[in-house]
Amino acid sequence: MPKKIFFTPGPSALYFTVEEHLKQAMRDQVMEINHRSSQAEDYFRTAVDNLKSLMSIPEDYSIFFLSSATEIWERQLQNLVVENSFHYTFGAFSNRFFNFAVTNGFSAKQESANFGELPNTSPDLIPNDTELIGVTLNETSTGVSFPVEDIYKIRAQHPEKLIAVDGVSAFPSIDLDFSKIDSAYFSVQKCFGLPAGLGVWVVSPKAMAAAEAKLKSGRTIGTYQALPNLFKNAQKAQTTFTANVLGIYLLSKVSADMLEKGIDVIRRETSYKAALLNHMVDSHPNLEHFVSDRSVRSKTVTVANTVGDSNEILNKLSKKGFVLGNGYGEYKGKQIRIASFPTHSKEQMELLVDVINDII
Amino acid sequence: MPKKIFFTPGPSALYFTVEEHLKQAMRDQVMEINHRSSQAEDYFRTAVDNLKSLMSIPEDYSIFFLSSATEIWERQLQNLVVENSFHYTFGAFSNRFFNFAVTNGFSAKQESANFGELPNTSPDLIPNDTELIGVTLNETSTGVSFPVEDIYKIRAQHPEKLIAVDGVSAFPSIDLDFSKIDSAYFSVQKCFGLPAGLGVWVVSPKAMAAAEAKLKSGRTIGTYQALPNLFKNAQKAQTTFTANVLGIYLLSKVSADMLEKGIDVIRRETSYKAALLNHMVDSHPNLEHFVSDRSVRSKTVTVANTVGDSNEILNKLSKKGFVLGNGYGEYKGKQIRIASFPTHSKEQMELLVDVINDII
Repeated sequence: MPKKIFFTPGPSALYFTVEEHLKQAMRDQVMEINHRSSQAEDYFRTAVDNLKSLMSIPEDYSIFFLSSATEIWERQLQNLVVENSFHYTFGAFSNRFFNFAVTNGFSAKQESANFGELPNTSPDLIPNDTELIGVTLNETSTGVSFPVEDIYKIRAQHPEKLIAVDGVSAFPSIDLDFSKIDSAYFSVQKCFGLPAGLGVWVVSPKAMAAAEAKLKSGRTIGTYQALPNLFKNAQKAQTTFTANVLGIYLLSKVSADMLEKGIDVIRRETSYKAALLNHMVDSHPNLEHFVSDRSVRSKTVTVANTVGDSNEILNKLSKKGFVLGNGYGEYKGKQIRIASFPTHSKEQMELLVDVINDII
Repeated sequence: MPKKIFFTPGPSALYFTVEEHLKQAMRDQVMEINHRSSQAEDYFRTAVDNLKSLMSIPEDYSIFFLSSATEIWERQLQNLVVENSFHYTFGAFSNRFFNFAVTNGFSAKQESANFGELPNTSPDLIPNDTELIGVTLNETSTGVSFPVEDIYKIRAQHPEKLIAVDGVSAFPSIDLDFSKIDSAYFSVQKCFGLPAGLGVWVVSPKAMAAAEAKLKSGRTIGTYQALPNLFKNAQKAQTTFTANVLGIYLLSKVSADMLEKGIDVIRRETSYKAALLNHMVDSHPNLEHFVSDRSVRSKTVTVANTVGDSNEILNKLSKKGFVLGNGYGEYKGKQIRIASFPTHSKEQMELLVDVINDII
């Protein structure tokens, strides 16, 4: 059976070099070496260095490898919040992080919007006692993006608070000035095109200090994933547990490939592909943009309402070899979601547009 | 460069069928499919069914996939303990679980032994108010095993308490009657010969009820890894987060291979290989058993003190293509640790013994 192309918003198509790297990993016995060996430390160090170069992450920020972005929601609350968090909630994932805070007994406040819309991002709405502000750069469930300029305004008005940015399905395609935020995280099965099973956490010195302060005040900040422990291990280029070494190896390789291609090229292509998809939805009689405000439409995940059952459309496309995402949650059967990640070439996207125009 | 054979006690040699399964995974696009697709659910269901068959796990027990055994230490405390846990501590890993309990503010008690020895396993030592008893079936750091008969005695005397068994580097090689325990867990990079990045948690109905009761009493049992949430997702053959789908796929395949080989054969071979290694240590002038009581010597991890620096011995063996484990922690440079997992054939083990006798 010929392979299908996955345009699902994560897990998605593997980055086009992954299969070769996997074969090399078998030859180099990457899956058998000790996770505290110098070989594994090299993969860790290379992945960190490459990510810092690729996304211009400040040198004094730390990068840690955990199991998933979901885990990092929990670890952020555990390490960085004593009492008060504030969340912009406008889709399944931003809501879920907010709910984690509530369930864990924090006093969590939210500024909310309907699915498909952006909440009011005015920095005036953030209470003064807020310790951590949760921002979702790209709501994978709705295709709404949070403008980075609005993050910088929040920073300017609240310099002492911690800003935590969910970069899932955004990094590295979306440009963010990391010096203006304190915590950022993503999972690798989205824009990096890697097999699922690894979460990446970028932490500023200010956030590190917040965790230390919480610990010194006599509170618990967790065990093996407490930031001081993550930091101590990362100094040795090691994880805090027997992590997915293969995932770190593949990330070190794919980030190198992306550096070679150039982040500017990746981001230019992202804009081109988004324009292509937006134009297709605009001009198609049986599709309609879910996100009506074009200024907050995601460049990496395009969401369209369908006339008729979207399952039928998705089945037809799948038979042609194109796997797209369904609507999320209650939008299942009513929408299609299309990922436009770095591995999706302009040519593949043009082909997809033709096929969609042909089929729907 | 010819491939080396890893006899390290985890990560270790891949199960000998893993490379073929990985190639099939690429052809089947296992790393690209959605983790909530029916294809991924099939891998989940097959892995669960196979593990239950392989280790005779009762039908009404649940099996969940998390990120590591380290995570499961934390989740057990979060879900199953309100106040009091009790731990047999006799090596790095049993100590670490105990320390997790202390750091998280539980009232944790321990019955301790020096490295290389088994603690007093008398059920009389367990305080009446204990909720969870932590037993490490095989201390990977020392090569001491906890006799399963002693677990059954603890069960008989404390039928109402929860018994949690660390089966890392023991399952499925060591036979345990799961109906006599309530929680058991392992990571896949040991006896199952898989790439690291997956933890497996087996939970009894009684343990499930304990988590529900803790929740009902108004306490927090966590968020996405709370047992009721793990259970709800597992009913649909799904994980609670975007887990390592490739790991679950490979586990479904390798567990099938082990079923085909037969668990009795695997366990007979384990005994044979342990006898071979024990005899080698007994008869070698420059090696000495770390675990002097032969009745508690591990069948899967053999630990020997070396005359002279063990690093030199390990380097010589590595040059010949045999990678063994070093002593753990303060025993580094003083010991060698040899894994004898299902993927290690009798012939490989005989060859290793010859090479060791030749080199040391």
